Amino acid sequence: MARIRVGIVGYGNLGRGVETALALQEDMELVGVFTRRDPAAVQTLRPGTAVRAITDLETMPGEIDVLVLCGGSKSDLAEQTPQLAGRFTVVDSFDTHVRVPEHFARVDAAARAAGTTAIISTGWDPGLFSINRLFGEAILASGSTYTFWGRGLSQGHSDALRRIDGVAAAVQYTVPSEEAVDRVRAGERPQLSTREKHTRECFVVLEEGADADAVREAIVTMPHYFEPYDTTVTFLDAEELARDHRGMPHGGFVIRSGESSPGTRQTIEYRLQEDSNPEFTASVLVAYARAAVRLDAAGDHGAKTPFDVAPGLLSPKTPEQLRAELL
Amino acid sequence: MARIRVGIVGYGNLGRGVETALALQEDMELVGVFTRRDPAAVQTLRPGTAVRAITDLETMPGEIDVLVLCGGSKSDLAEQTPQLAGRFTVVDSFDTHVRVPEHFARVDAAARAAGTTAIISTGWDPGLFSINRLFGEAILASGSTYTFWGRGLSQGHSDALRRIDGVAAAVQYTVPSEEAVDRVRAGERPQLSTREKHTRECFVVLEEGADADAVREAIVTMPHYFEPYDTTVTFLDAEELARDHRGMPHGGFVIRSGESSPGTRQTIEYRLQEDSNPEFTASVLVAYARAAVRLDAAGDHGAKTPFDVAPGLLSPKTPEQLRAELL
Repeated sequence: MARIRVGIVGYGNLGRGVETALALQEDMELVGVFTRRDPAAVQTLRPGTAVRAITDLETMPGEIDVLVLCGGSKSDLAEQTPQLAGRFTVVDSFDTHVRVPEHFARVDAAARAAGTTAIISTGWDPGLFSINRLFGEAILASGSTYTFWGRGLSQGHSDALRRIDGVAAAVQYTVPSEEAVDRVRAGERPQLSTREKHTRECFVVLEEGADADAVREAIVTMPHYFEPYDTTVTFLDAEELARDHRGMPHGGFVIRSGESSPGTRQTIEYRLQEDSNPEFTASVLVAYARAAVRLDAAGDHGAKTPFDVAPGLLSPKTPEQLRAELL
Repeated sequence: MARIRVGIVGYGNLGRGVETALALQEDMELVGVFTRRDPAAVQTLRPGTAVRAITDLETMPGEIDVLVLCGGSKSDLAEQTPQLAGRFTVVDSFDTHVRVPEHFARVDAAARAAGTTAIISTGWDPGLFSINRLFGEAILASGSTYTFWGRGLSQGHSDALRRIDGVAAAVQYTVPSEEAVDRVRAGERPQLSTREKHTRECFVVLEEGADADAVREAIVTMPHYFEPYDTTVTFLDAEELARDHRGMPHGGFVIRSGESSPGTRQTIEYRLQEDSNPEFTASVLVAYARAAVRLDAAGDHGAKTPFDVAPGLLSPKTPEQLRAELL
């Protein structure tokens, strides 16, 4: 069978993750990376990867089965996904939760008009976590759903640290409270405040001559970002930061805790532990790219979310194989 | 909107669980329980539940939207599912893994001929665990999948204990080895023998005058059932057994441990903790009954498994609500 021909649009951490993930999928091949930058200036992870200008896509609809869109939700995807869905089957990881309905409507209109398929908001949250929130409440109608994030690197909170006077470099990890997770797992169905659900760990390199106490105070009192949480601040030197905090780990839990009858507790728990958030997200995008091609081939056009995609479409195996091997 | 009209076929633990689960679903209503026994002799859990002879179904296709089949895989479902799919949209929890392909083929032929929809092998294993095995290998193409069962009551192993001379009553729990689960969770990808994955806990009431040591020896040396495992035997009296071991707890883990690139570990873990296995399985069946009705209404006929059902079809919410609230 012909392999699925995939294009990557945008070449940051996520785009590199897709390049890496595709190399593990035998039924898929990478046509190339499409970028707004000068292609000659882009260094790819894998030596054979072609890099082309994004404008080259205009002449290529017949050469590509699906585009994996790897831009950011705010700046890129809101425009790119509807635009490219007008000519290609696409998947994205649009993750601005409140703007999903609007994004869906715009992508759906473009994809229906063009007869293409577009799966939006794939990845892990939105994505796999969303599916587990849905399964949880559909199965345990009487219950509570909890989402915990981490232990994971938060880009937004790391940026907030770096804006503080006296901070030369910093990273911040969001950590689910073990006590809170254990209470939820035990079926207590607690009401949890923001402070009770997560803690924040900051690793900070000071500028020369900076006052550690003042920096620490500025961090733990910062409204919204750190004040509402139990926040720890650890100072370290630039070498230690580079050595011990290079990765982009993330993950978390979705837990549905309910009762099927009075006093009969049932708990569904879904947990991700990611050494690399962008590589994991990319691996999910690639599986949904396969599903998008199959939906398109079946004439099922328009915008979709992970809620609309049958699990079997994600796998390279045939329905017969899946029933025999995995059911 | 009209509520989904549901019939229950078979009224053991699972059928009672479906009766209980339906009471929590506002968009569904129970038409009645259909049994091979004398309906007058069947005591239902809920006072308003109608009980009718299974033969009454012959005149009722217009009054029922979906049948939830609650018989056993060996004796009942192999015959009942294809037969009833010839007149009704149905869901079952057929769980004889090796016979799934054959069961699927027979149900598919009947459902296609009749223009009905039949979702087979719903529940948690097969069912939710199967879906997680599929997601795991589709997303983390390079990796290993582990399924652990328990802590849970095993009917087959409890029966085996009761057949031993000197045993008056007994229950057996299958318990995942904590050490094995931790090794898998940590990304070690170990090769695990049967003995290393699970242990077995036996709670035994002796007959009067029975020799405890002889009974213990007969248990731990029983081939297939107990010899390949680390097995503990606890003797207790009939009152303690009745008080502390009435429930039918179960659950387990599906863990996919893989690498998205060399040295970059990614772990997906799915865990169920069920106070009542039949009530949990029933809750899953009921969600798939809703999906079956929707597939049937959309003209998507024939046999399906959980691999073929988009998650959104399980929820009472509309696609718009799901995107706004759960994505």
